[in-house]
Amino acid sequence: MNTLGHIFRLTTFGESHGAAIGGVIDGCPSQLKLDFDFIESELLRRKTAQSPTASQRKEPDHVEWLSGLLEGVTLGTSIAFMVRNEDCKPEDYEALKDVYRPSHADFTYEQKYGLRDWRGGGRASARTTLPIVVAGAIAKQLLKGQGIQVFAEVTAMGDAEQARKEGDTVGGVVECRITGVPAGWGEPMFCKFSAELAHAMFSLPAVKGFEVGDGFAMAGMKGSEANDTFINKMDAGLRDINKMDAGLRDARRETSPESRSPESRVKITTLTNHSGGIQGGISNGNDIVFRVAFKPIPSIAQPQQTVNRAGETCQITIEGRHDVCALPRAVVLVEALAAMVTLDMGMRAK
Amino acid sequence: MNTLGHIFRLTTFGESHGAAIGGVIDGCPSQLKLDFDFIESELLRRKTAQSPTASQRKEPDHVEWLSGLLEGVTLGTSIAFMVRNEDCKPEDYEALKDVYRPSHADFTYEQKYGLRDWRGGGRASARTTLPIVVAGAIAKQLLKGQGIQVFAEVTAMGDAEQARKEGDTVGGVVECRITGVPAGWGEPMFCKFSAELAHAMFSLPAVKGFEVGDGFAMAGMKGSEANDTFINKMDAGLRDINKMDAGLRDARRETSPESRSPESRVKITTLTNHSGGIQGGISNGNDIVFRVAFKPIPSIAQPQQTVNRAGETCQITIEGRHDVCALPRAVVLVEALAAMVTLDMGMRAK
Amino acid sequence: MNTLGHIFRLTTFGESHGAAIGGVIDGCPSQLKLDFDFIESELLRRKTAQSPTASQRKEPDHVEWLSGLLEGVTLGTSIAFMVRNEDCKPEDYEALKDVYRPSHADFTYEQKYGLRDWRGGGRASARTTLPIVVAGAIAKQLLKGQGIQVFAEVTAMGDAEQARKEGDTVGGVVECRITGVPAGWGEPMFCKFSAELAHAMFSLPAVKGFEVGDGFAMAGMKGSEANDTFINKMDAGLRDINKMDAGLRDARRETSPESRSPESRVKITTLTNHSGGIQGGISNGNDIVFRVAFKPIPSIAQPQQTVNRAGETCQITIEGRHDVCALPRAVVLVEALAAMVTLDMGMRAK
Amino acid sequence: MNTLGHIFRLTTFGESHGAAIGGVIDGCPSQLKLDFDFIESELLRRKTAQSPTASQRKEPDHVEWLSGLLEGVTLGTSIAFMVRNEDCKPEDYEALKDVYRPSHADFTYEQKYGLRDWRGGGRASARTTLPIVVAGAIAKQLLKGQGIQVFAEVTAMGDAEQARKEGDTVGGVVECRITGVPAGWGEPMFCKFSAELAHAMFSLPAVKGFEVGDGFAMAGMKGSEANDTFINKMDAGLRDINKMDAGLRDARRETSPESRSPESRVKITTLTNHSGGIQGGISNGNDIVFRVAFKPIPSIAQPQQTVNRAGETCQITIEGRHDVCALPRAVVLVEALAAMVTLDMGMRAK
Repeated sequence: MNTLGHIFRLTTFGESHGAAIGGVIDGCPSQLKLDFDFIESELLRRKTAQSPTASQRKEPDHVEWLSGLLEGVTLGTSIAFMVRNEDCKPEDYEALKDVYRPSHADFTYEQKYGLRDWRGGGRASARTTLPIVVAGAIAKQLLKGQGIQVFAEVTAMGDAEQARKEGDTVGGVVECRITGVPAGWGEPMFCKFSAELAHAMFSLPAVKGFEVGDGFAMAGMKGSEANDTFINKMDAGLRDINKMDAGLRDARRETSPESRSPESRVKITTLTNHSGGIQGGISNGNDIVFRVAFKPIPSIAQPQQTVNRAGETCQITIEGRHDVCALPRAVVLVEALAAMVTLDMGMRAK
Repeated sequence: MNTLGHIFRLTTFGESHGAAIGGVIDGCPSQLKLDFDFIESELLRRKTAQSPTASQRKEPDHVEWLSGLLEGVTLGTSIAFMVRNEDCKPEDYEALKDVYRPSHADFTYEQKYGLRDWRGGGRASARTTLPIVVAGAIAKQLLKGQGIQVFAEVTAMGDAEQARKEGDTVGGVVECRITGVPAGWGEPMFCKFSAELAHAMFSLPAVKGFEVGDGFAMAGMKGSEANDTFINKMDAGLRDINKMDAGLRDARRETSPESRSPESRVKITTLTNHSGGIQGGISNGNDIVFRVAFKPIPSIAQPQQTVNRAGETCQITIEGRHDVCALPRAVVLVEALAAMVTLDMGMRAK
Repeated sequence: MNTLGHIFRLTTFGESHGAAIGGVIDGCPSQLKLDFDFIESELLRRKTAQSPTASQRKEPDHVEWLSGLLEGVTLGTSIAFMVRNEDCKPEDYEALKDVYRPSHADFTYEQKYGLRDWRGGGRASARTTLPIVVAGAIAKQLLKGQGIQVFAEVTAMGDAEQARKEGDTVGGVVECRITGVPAGWGEPMFCKFSAELAHAMFSLPAVKGFEVGDGFAMAGMKGSEANDTFINKMDAGLRDINKMDAGLRDARRETSPESRSPESRVKITTLTNHSGGIQGGISNGNDIVFRVAFKPIPSIAQPQQTVNRAGETCQITIEGRHDVCALPRAVVLVEALAAMVTLDMGMRAK
Repeated sequence: MNTLGHIFRLTTFGESHGAAIGGVIDGCPSQLKLDFDFIESELLRRKTAQSPTASQRKEPDHVEWLSGLLEGVTLGTSIAFMVRNEDCKPEDYEALKDVYRPSHADFTYEQKYGLRDWRGGGRASARTTLPIVVAGAIAKQLLKGQGIQVFAEVTAMGDAEQARKEGDTVGGVVECRITGVPAGWGEPMFCKFSAELAHAMFSLPAVKGFEVGDGFAMAGMKGSEANDTFINKMDAGLRDINKMDAGLRDARRETSPESRSPESRVKITTLTNHSGGIQGGISNGNDIVFRVAFKPIPSIAQPQQTVNRAGETCQITIEGRHDVCALPRAVVLVEALAAMVTLDMGMRAK
């Protein structure tokens, strides 16, 4: 199943060293003038994030639009797009053709399919997330028109420069905040807003954890600490709420000024936001806040022990220029998926 | 959307104080002689878990089977079942009819639907998880025939007895292990085994976090620490593997003896199991291990500030006998959902 | 798969001689005060249709509502309902337990599932269509609020009274007209309005044909005969259109007065309606018209040759009081499914 | 929704004068060596069918394979492919940009989406069926390995050469037969084999009718005429069955020799095949037979009255070289969809 979403749906295709990577978006409203500059800038965020120094910027991957558009405006029909894979050097991977790289998907793909595309990770490569950025950019454009925005940032990360020296890699945590979501989005029972976000985030390579609001920390709280008191925004002016907030231990998790504005759709909000904007699986009008844990990239430069297809123990060294940390480029991916899920939940709520 | 699963599907219905709670299972194989004793014992695990002392055991909820069976054997058609809601005292809730209990779904349901069933939480009540236990028991029975088992336990929990005295509640963490899953189950991209588990677990009330394998802890590891070395089970006898394990910091997360048995389907496994049995979204044959974080139950006995439907600030006290902690009864729910997801992934793999 | 629909979804359960027949409706809007009298009257249409004489009316099947309602108003959550099977006499069927009735589903169910519920047809019984009537009545109520109505009638039927004397049965054709559907409903490519209607109608037992507009007759037309000329309703007053119609060979298939009213949403309509209100899979604002062909009921009173489970040729006589023709009771079923599909298409169009 | 199928799924994209037409196949088994020659020959059947004389053969559309393959072998991942649209002359259509061609989808698309791709029919063009041929060819290849074959032919068609002279077009009927389907495929209730076939066939442009087995003719039969007698193939040798058949009025609808072979999976079959191989929505092991009615192509060369976007009555003449009849090229499309549905039903049956 290569499809994400219920109404706004993305189907992706492509292996890292195949002909192309791309996607088909179904359910995008008609009459939207696509912001191609924004899409390119989002792809650039993903691409340049690879390098720790800004000067090495390269041109983004070039997107070919195959269908669904007339003079840059969406027709309401399926939007297909692709990016050609260039400069593929599959020969770099021939040495690893018959071994299972530790904590990669080589072994599991082969168990599932009986064969695998050994060229650069194939379908399991991080490159296959590229279509998510494109669909996410379109989702962001649609959400922006509804006053909804998505911001993610790296909030924890290992010491990358030290790891590089040691031929090692590091993991980290990305936190994401969605502002402006009206109360009442999300479906009870099996399509909770939190469940859909969790599902989407675990689609990214290397994700091993997901939490909403105060998440795992809430397991150690008492109810009296974890409960979010409902307040009437009209009573409590913004200044007062900010004062009240001052004593709380984690300012990042509090109500953002935007979602408290008098213009917002409901007068009722919560004083704190331990719940991360979701209660009973449905948005409460406060910021939706969640965190995603990424394991370190498994392609380390150090020699490693593993087994080959014949089951023989062997030692491998993974060559090539690999990222030390996936986090910087994961930020735009987390945002993209969050935007797609939010847009989809909004469409379903109507 | 009140349906979970793709091939083995459960659709649930019911409010806590409506006529009945129940479900319809679609996609259950025919010719299975249902183990009704086992189903009842699972329901009893959920029910008696409420009470900290074993002596207060009560009879389980009585399941009425409405369809899909002939003399206790599945026909392959949809299996409907229900449990009547008895001793409903909606008048207990009349006082709370017009207020929003903090961190409950009262406010969000009303925002979504324009009205809500105020009698005991309605559709958002924990009682609505009952059908999950029934479907999970059937899934376990089917998995057992394939050598697959699911075990969960509470691995972290606040001090319940102290909280009770203070009119407070506590949260905690449930860890779950699925043994015997062959390598190769799970779909790449958007239906990863981990993504499906995450989605299912967030269907439970009060869940705020989910992690697979070493989860959030992996965000702080180096690649050289996090990678799971592939080994050949034939080379390393069971004893030797156990010796190697001894030095590892968390025995709970290691390969279980069962999944290392010479009879298992593949000879290759991993020495450590930081990945939690899933790589690239697909099972690697090792135990699947994950943890679920539950927030404290929001119904505390202490007086709380909130607002009513008119937006006026008010104080409420939630009466009645509420659990101090949802964790004990959550164990069987986590197992049930894990079994349903695993069975569904297995059916899809074929 | 016992589920029909994408947003307004019905999942059904039940065998003819099991404990109950019922369904779960997902996606019904909240705050609808159900018209229980109408639902009962629809069930009565289905029930009394069995008998050719009006005097034998019986009380309708009694619907028990299990969930999704508060004081008769929909909550937006899943609505479950059931009807108990009473006066079941499975012993009537014991004689046929091991033989395959010609043109029934006995043989195919057994091939598929390895066993079958031999009591009265089990899941393949016409009684299992009962939940469709309930869901259809709710869909009609919702459509009525949008000015959409569904009417079906028997337009062809064999000579039932003669067949009864001969111990035989007859088939026939039901024609259905949906008025008031705005232009623009339906999805191109794989979810055309016509495709969804065809799919739904083939869910009914005994259906062997389906056609939209002039249907099979169009295979013999020329383009100049089959094309529907677009006209502006403002230019051509109603009277003039009716005059123009006079020469056309089949008045039943023409634009209905309602859909030509000046108040209708678009000014453009078609002079003729050979297309049956659907072009390119999308409604054009004209009446949607289709026909469904039903084969004769296979339970005839005459002795028939068949084989038993051992593969031995044998002769059977089907006892009991069976309908001579399914058509009269099929009318409300065709309407119900048409209403469900139309409501679902409308929800998807928004 | 641009997706067909449940396990073997095709998502299509493309407008007739956009950059490309293509599709993404999800759920194709891994390790299949694609028969590219066969795929090309199927595309050629669709292309050359346009012309009544065989000498005008042209090269087929060139398929670019974008993903899912390694050296021509399926990886089990999503298979994307496309065909570039060349020699597009959108200027040919500029004259029709603001008018609604009778019985085309111009008006309905514009009502649905607020705009339409006026270049050659856009998404509603028959050219968008091209990906169905590709996916159908792959489905046929997979079915062939299971002994299942699909054959369609034109069984009724208007006088094309006469219509051409008159600037007119004709419709017709395609009959399709699927041989070798084992008994037991298909799902009861809402995913009957017949319902899935009907749904798929109505995805084709210009389809207005669908019937299974004797179809609409059964509406006029008596039960004693319509019932298919079960027989044991071992008792009745092939010769005897053929003798019995001799008296039946429609040899085309009878059991084919293949499906009566002693090697077939079950010993029981039916003497006649009025049911068209499907009973209770499930295959009975006999040939599956159905017919599809196509209306005449609406692009006639004669001048026609219509209205423009401003609602003004006007006269148009559709220029260009259009087919007189869609039937010849529809044959491979009917086969392709039948193959896809059959493959999908088989996958679901397992």
